[in-house]
Amino acid sequence: MKNSSFQEIILKLQDFWASHGCLITQPYYTQVGAGTMNPATFLRVLGPEPWNVAYVEPSVRPDDGRYGENPNRFQLHTQYQVILKPDPGNPQELYLESLNALGIDPRQHDIRFVEDNWEQPAISAWGLGWEVWLDGQEITQFTYFQQMGGVALDPVSVEITYGLERILIALNNAKAIWNEPWGSIQGRESATVVTYGEIRRQEEFEHSKYYFEAADVERVRAMYDLFSAEAEACLAGGLIVPAHDYVLKCSHSFNILDTRGAISVAERQAFFRRIRELAKGVAVAYGEQRKGLEYPLLKNAEVRMKNAESKPSFNSAFSNLHSSFVLEIGVEELPASDVDSAHAHLTTRIPTLLDELHLAHGDVRIFATPRRLTVYVENLSPSQPDRENLVKGPPADKAFDKDGKPTQAALGFAKKNNLDPATLEAREIDGGKYVAAVVKQKGRPTPEVLVDALPKLVESIKFEKSMRWNDSGVSFSRPIRWYVALLGDMVIPFEYAGVVSGNTSRGLRPYDSPEIKIPSADKYFDTIREAGILLDKEERKASIVEQVNQAAALIGGEAIIEDGLLNEVANLIEMPTAVMGGFDNEYLSLPQDVLISVMKKHQRYFPVEKNGKLLAHFIAIRNGDDLHMDIVREGNEHVLGARFADANFFVREDIKLKLEEYRPKLAGLMFHTKLGSMLDKSERMLKLAEELSSMLALTEHETRNTHRATFLSKADLVTQMVTEMTSLQGIIGREYAIRSGEQKDIAIAIGEQYQTVPQTKIGLVVALADRLDSLVGLFASGLAPTGAKDPFGLRRAAIGIVQPLIEHNVDFDLAAAVKESAKTQPIEVGAEVQKQILDFITGRLNVVLKDAGYKYDVVDAVLAEQSNNPAGSLRAVKQLQAWVERKDWHEILPAFARCVRIIRSPSVTSDQLLVIGRVFMSEPEEMDLFDAVLSLQPGYKSVDEFLNAIMELVPLINIFFDKVLVMAEDKIVRNNRLALVGQIASLSSGIADLGKLEGF
Amino acid sequence: MKNSSFQEIILKLQDFWASHGCLITQPYYTQVGAGTMNPATFLRVLGPEPWNVAYVEPSVRPDDGRYGENPNRFQLHTQYQVILKPDPGNPQELYLESLNALGIDPRQHDIRFVEDNWEQPAISAWGLGWEVWLDGQEITQFTYFQQMGGVALDPVSVEITYGLERILIALNNAKAIWNEPWGSIQGRESATVVTYGEIRRQEEFEHSKYYFEAADVERVRAMYDLFSAEAEACLAGGLIVPAHDYVLKCSHSFNILDTRGAISVAERQAFFRRIRELAKGVAVAYGEQRKGLEYPLLKNAEVRMKNAESKPSFNSAFSNLHSSFVLEIGVEELPASDVDSAHAHLTTRIPTLLDELHLAHGDVRIFATPRRLTVYVENLSPSQPDRENLVKGPPADKAFDKDGKPTQAALGFAKKNNLDPATLEAREIDGGKYVAAVVKQKGRPTPEVLVDALPKLVESIKFEKSMRWNDSGVSFSRPIRWYVALLGDMVIPFEYAGVVSGNTSRGLRPYDSPEIKIPSADKYFDTIREAGILLDKEERKASIVEQVNQAAALIGGEAIIEDGLLNEVANLIEMPTAVMGGFDNEYLSLPQDVLISVMKKHQRYFPVEKNGKLLAHFIAIRNGDDLHMDIVREGNEHVLGARFADANFFVREDIKLKLEEYRPKLAGLMFHTKLGSMLDKSERMLKLAEELSSMLALTEHETRNTHRATFLSKADLVTQMVTEMTSLQGIIGREYAIRSGEQKDIAIAIGEQYQTVPQTKIGLVVALADRLDSLVGLFASGLAPTGAKDPFGLRRAAIGIVQPLIEHNVDFDLAAAVKESAKTQPIEVGAEVQKQILDFITGRLNVVLKDAGYKYDVVDAVLAEQSNNPAGSLRAVKQLQAWVERKDWHEILPAFARCVRIIRSPSVTSDQLLVIGRVFMSEPEEMDLFDAVLSLQPGYKSVDEFLNAIMELVPLINIFFDKVLVMAEDKIVRNNRLALVGQIASLSSGIADLGKLEGF
Repeated sequence: MKNSSFQEIILKLQDFWASHGCLITQPYYTQVGAGTMNPATFLRVLGPEPWNVAYVEPSVRPDDGRYGENPNRFQLHTQYQVILKPDPGNPQELYLESLNALGIDPRQHDIRFVEDNWEQPAISAWGLGWEVWLDGQEITQFTYFQQMGGVALDPVSVEITYGLERILIALNNAKAIWNEPWGSIQGRESATVVTYGEIRRQEEFEHSKYYFEAADVERVRAMYDLFSAEAEACLAGGLIVPAHDYVLKCSHSFNILDTRGAISVAERQAFFRRIRELAKGVAVAYGEQRKGLEYPLLKNAEVRMKNAESKPSFNSAFSNLHSSFVLEIGVEELPASDVDSAHAHLTTRIPTLLDELHLAHGDVRIFATPRRLTVYVENLSPSQPDRENLVKGPPADKAFDKDGKPTQAALGFAKKNNLDPATLEAREIDGGKYVAAVVKQKGRPTPEVLVDALPKLVESIKFEKSMRWNDSGVSFSRPIRWYVALLGDMVIPFEYAGVVSGNTSRGLRPYDSPEIKIPSADKYFDTIREAGILLDKEERKASIVEQVNQAAALIGGEAIIEDGLLNEVANLIEMPTAVMGGFDNEYLSLPQDVLISVMKKHQRYFPVEKNGKLLAHFIAIRNGDDLHMDIVREGNEHVLGARFADANFFVREDIKLKLEEYRPKLAGLMFHTKLGSMLDKSERMLKLAEELSSMLALTEHETRNTHRATFLSKADLVTQMVTEMTSLQGIIGREYAIRSGEQKDIAIAIGEQYQTVPQTKIGLVVALADRLDSLVGLFASGLAPTGAKDPFGLRRAAIGIVQPLIEHNVDFDLAAAVKESAKTQPIEVGAEVQKQILDFITGRLNVVLKDAGYKYDVVDAVLAEQSNNPAGSLRAVKQLQAWVERKDWHEILPAFARCVRIIRSPSVTSDQLLVIGRVFMSEPEEMDLFDAVLSLQPGYKSVDEFLNAIMELVPLINIFFDKVLVMAEDKIVRNNRLALVGQIASLSSGIADLGKLEGF
Repeated sequence: MKNSSFQEIILKLQDFWASHGCLITQPYYTQVGAGTMNPATFLRVLGPEPWNVAYVEPSVRPDDGRYGENPNRFQLHTQYQVILKPDPGNPQELYLESLNALGIDPRQHDIRFVEDNWEQPAISAWGLGWEVWLDGQEITQFTYFQQMGGVALDPVSVEITYGLERILIALNNAKAIWNEPWGSIQGRESATVVTYGEIRRQEEFEHSKYYFEAADVERVRAMYDLFSAEAEACLAGGLIVPAHDYVLKCSHSFNILDTRGAISVAERQAFFRRIRELAKGVAVAYGEQRKGLEYPLLKNAEVRMKNAESKPSFNSAFSNLHSSFVLEIGVEELPASDVDSAHAHLTTRIPTLLDELHLAHGDVRIFATPRRLTVYVENLSPSQPDRENLVKGPPADKAFDKDGKPTQAALGFAKKNNLDPATLEAREIDGGKYVAAVVKQKGRPTPEVLVDALPKLVESIKFEKSMRWNDSGVSFSRPIRWYVALLGDMVIPFEYAGVVSGNTSRGLRPYDSPEIKIPSADKYFDTIREAGILLDKEERKASIVEQVNQAAALIGGEAIIEDGLLNEVANLIEMPTAVMGGFDNEYLSLPQDVLISVMKKHQRYFPVEKNGKLLAHFIAIRNGDDLHMDIVREGNEHVLGARFADANFFVREDIKLKLEEYRPKLAGLMFHTKLGSMLDKSERMLKLAEELSSMLALTEHETRNTHRATFLSKADLVTQMVTEMTSLQGIIGREYAIRSGEQKDIAIAIGEQYQTVPQTKIGLVVALADRLDSLVGLFASGLAPTGAKDPFGLRRAAIGIVQPLIEHNVDFDLAAAVKESAKTQPIEVGAEVQKQILDFITGRLNVVLKDAGYKYDVVDAVLAEQSNNPAGSLRAVKQLQAWVERKDWHEILPAFARCVRIIRSPSVTSDQLLVIGRVFMSEPEEMDLFDAVLSLQPGYKSVDEFLNAIMELVPLINIFFDKVLVMAEDKIVRNNRLALVGQIASLSSGIADLGKLEGF
């Protein structure tokens, strides 16, 4: 098979898009990070004018430089950029056709549209769409632009950005780009193939070196200043494109500085803000300019089609029998979470809706895949029943005059409801007297009802993020492209979002989404299944699990199947087929967490392990059948290899320094403006960890290593590996600590710090120090979570305090700890705030305990009295729950409750509980009780001690209350008796408030 | 006819060159002035590796910005760049094929390869080649690169740079680019054509405004500094491409500053030097890098073909009759001046060569066109005659021993010359006795002789500038592509410059240079004429003159046919056909000199006038026949229109300021480092003009206006129009002076300053001041012309001093003037230098007078005695020449000569000539002569006065010499007589040295 060349790909795309109605333009003449920045996109997507354009864009991203060592990651990569404005209605199909023109047959590959929310804050732009994956490799970004330069776009533009290097790799089934042909040189006698590497590799090395090591920070900074000043001046002078050019130069010089590691987090904001302001200025000015020119491209453009005239209609002859109904909403690939949320919405909504519509029905079944949302209703009634409605009219006293004749109001009401005024009479309604009418409503035929209801149903489906795509202005997760709406075999015609319903569905993506006629609702499931689509998510999941396990077994391993991943994968495909691939054994030397993280997070692969150790294999799920599976496998293997190579690169770069050498760089990483840098935080943690070590009575060795672990804990945040994959924080710290020669327990502690429950004591202290510092500092800065918002993850931090204390079962004084942390903060943390923090933590503790299965009342009872020591709280909860479950509990609790209730009655004041003296006692029962109370050991620490004591008292208490009148006439006697039971009640103090218990 | 679109052109070129063995790459990602700067050219043409590449390059040239008002001049234009390395042997044909692929049929147009010596001093690069003209429009630059970044190139690369906008204009026969289609956008229902203007015009306006008006000079300067520092740092770090990127940024920022008018001439040098050094550094480093990589592209490349094995051979059977011989050297289009110089060389060389080769021959005819150099020899002898040579052997005394027997030396000589030793005898040769041999040399057959001689003949043709193109390493004006070498009908086989001779010539360019078999030398002329080629330049000239005059007559005008232009045009074509076109009447308001200059200099058109006023027409000469002449005419009209629009733009911009407002800007224009700026020069001229005015006795009014004219004289040098077309200096000054309200005689004087002979007195003074200042200043700076070199045009300056003084016939003291000028110079001008300057001027005066037809001896005679006043010299020359031509001159001169000769004899010392006294006289003849001498009026000023006086003396002189012995024994008598004739001889002093005359 002849290999494709880089230039062929470009020429084919140029031809393809030129013949599909695009202007062909050129790359921009100043460094851009993406084709989006070319004015042919950035400016032209603004405003109402149509614009189809395609061009190559060599894109420069300094921090992607890998010295030419990575097979498909480079500081310069070549994009092919297409803009379609407005959406032509079939951009995905056009795109797939273009792949076909390149020789990429969807049947031979696994092509996937994977959710991608594109955002470019630096130019205040965003859109929704996908990464397109070819055998696991991202080869294209496909975005419906919603906003650019801060300006909302109308119409929306479709942006298709091909990654040409990756496409070449895929086409040639290559390991890396470097040896693939760019083209060839014809000499007089023979042709010489010139590789991509020959043209770009040396340069790639040099630029990587320049960006990472050589660029002079002061000079590039000075360039940035000059560029931004010039951009502003151009803007002020109305010179839009020159201004834009300088914005791009700002952006590039910022990227250089960033790659060079010269931008602190705090600065970054300022840089971004400046660039964003300028970009917005450009966008707004351009918009005005085009408006001033009266939108020249609009003049010649076609008048937009409106479907207003072609209101759907249907043949009203239909069966009177109950029929099945199916609605399929066909969409471009939904994000996995949107598949779930739409499913959930429809599941609750449909039954309610049918009720509201007065339509009798049988079973309702809801299904969701990435490409279709299906509502199936069995036995739907052919029409609504006829109904009688009671319609409320004017109040009786206003409906009749003093002569009993209907007033004007009553006559009006009668007329409106088509009643004979003579039949009007007053009835009691809602506790008043009104004139009323019973109106008979004829049931409408179901098709009519549905025609009205279905658009509203579709409209009712909401998503966390949604987008516009055509001039209907409708928002949805992704564009809607078809509806099947069949009642029996009859199409229910409606139009919503510019799409008209019919009886045509679409098949699987890898089969080119062929049109599928659905003959009738009854045949829906069979037809869809014949098309190879698994509608039911549970079925897809089961199939995945089965295939993945089988594949893993083939190599004697076990697949690691995590629920979240399984769920996501099941929402990415309609026909799951497992494919297993391998990777180079050498990568097994990378931290295992890195490997797993890359496989799961980036690639949605299932890792395979054996005896707790990873195997050099992975299992991917393809969307489609097993045709040409070898190509799909090799493609996926290539991608994973490249990703691991990338990780390898970072690790190799990173370990040139020892872990502790990274720590000073934390000064450049902002924690929070009021609280300083991560280095500041790290310093506070050190002080706090010192206190905590002593609070937790660590040994001298433990204390020393805790200090070291805390000292190093945050250093990995400024390594390249963590910068690249934040989720590896801590894990990387641990690995690098070991490689830096730190003691093992220190390394482990560093690794554990982000785990909810660190296993080691040292890890526990580091984690506590971290989380307490965050809680205390951020609360003091007024950043306590509100409502559902918790941007700093403080709920998780609080759980991360109580959960490990519980699990380690170590006693701890949260109040003291908070107080210590408060001392280290750069801002004041008053008593009120400390209280607030402790309450917040208690709240989390409460949740944790209940989630652990303890009865809510037990938990509440304990936490009401003891919450500052979570481990103690748990012990108390456990004991109390055991008591509560005792058979004789119904005897114990009421006795104690009598004591508590009486002194909690509103008429009892606390000064009445102060004095107890035998001298004021007259009854033997009170004296017996008194003696018994006196004989108790004071200061019970546990629920058991306390309740065992109470149990002893129960008979005496019961007799006391039966025989003695506590609320005696005599005030002293009364107070003395109150004080006696108060004494008993107070035994629970600091242990549990039994008043919170059921049955109290 | 469907219009072409811009993107179609690009796609077609991409396809064409891809299918012709080029790599297709992308435009560069930073602003470049030309595709040459893209590393795909700049770096890849270095070193031995092959490289064929083609790419689009939007090229940014700030100073070409015209605010979108010019039909085909823009700050951003789109190049299509092709590099072929090494030369494929037929690059012109490939290029023409590519035009055909674009729809440009050479038969329908006038396609011309017009000499262009490409040079880019900023990157130390140069090459030779052409501008390719399509109907008068430059659409392509075609260059054989000889050097890049200071590195000599081996192999040479062919660079083809298409100007895509101009090609589109030509293809669509459009007036301007703006309304031509770029491409079209396909909407759902219809397609919208998008024009080039829609995409680029607004941006063109903004960038023009930015570059000319808005760019912040201080900031851009700072950018330049940062870029250049960063380039240097990259270079030091071995980061070649990053360094190159910054060199490009330097270059662009320099261009901005330049367009903004912020670069003084002095600074320009420094900027250039810096950029050049950096570019050289990049080139050298790249060369080393590739060498270090062992030239990867060379490894796979074909082994270069060597013709060593295939030494040409020929059939030795040939006629014994005299035959005609023809040699045609087929070349790619030669520059016009090279056509002439090659013709001149061959004209003198061929007869000599044939003599040297001992080949008898009839008439020799030499022809030259841009594509062929033809040598034709009639009746060439079939072989050399047999010859006898006398070969000198050892001296006789060493040839024979004392016994008379031949020595070893003699025997050796005999053997070497194939003689019987017995026949050896001594002969007298060169005044000595030697053994000698008469060696008979058999005449070689002519073909054999020619095989050896022809390569050397071709090699002997030298050019002012020559180039290499293939691995033969041969230099020629342009590549040699074929030889026809026929003796009778027999091919004389030889190889030179990698080309082998044959009998195939090539036809006219517009007919695709078809191959033409030449059956025999006799048929050469007929065959060539049949192919439509006019070999004979005189014939071409006559045809041009006839056609041009006819055309002009058609519109009732007269063509302005200047010799130089006629000569050049005749050397640009092989088949002249006139085409007449018109231009917009509005342009007639531009200065007439501007119009003529543009037509002649830029376009090689013949202007048409009527009654001394230009008509809005021009006549161009097409190479080819009159097919599709309308297309050719319209193309040429478009070009001229655009050029006039451009001139219009400059003039409109320029006249926003008054002329005097430009004068201060002269401070930014360097005259010479030692002599300061043009403003300094202008100030010196003012002082000198003051003196000259008084020397020339100008009136007060004249003096005042001379001052003003001198004051303004150089101001136009900093206008845009003169910057663009230097040849218009003075002319523009005059026009702008008038528009600025200056007096007419001042304006005229400004206009005249560069004319060799200004017509007005004021103009004369300005010119003299200018030229004297240059001569004096530059001589004092050590920059007197040496040999053939005269970089400052000082010969012309000197002629420009004497010629007008002569023609105005005004007396003038050059010595005094030089002295005055010397006073104004910033450096010392000693007496020695002043003398040198005066001698230099006298030398020019000498030439001027001789060129005017005066006898050389007369001129010499006069100038020996008077040269500081050219007008006087001329008068003297005139008179003397009249005397010399008198019939009785043979009586006058000898008499006077006797006087002169005797006192000039070596034995006479000057002290002998001091005393004359009648007391020492003894002879009546000497007394008579003495009396006659005494009676002369002293101090003759003119030749006539002097010679009239002499004529009176002639009889007395003759008698004196006949009768009196001047060299008497008595010393006093002798001295007295010498003093007497000395007195007579001295009468010529200050008038003429008659001793220089013939017959003296």
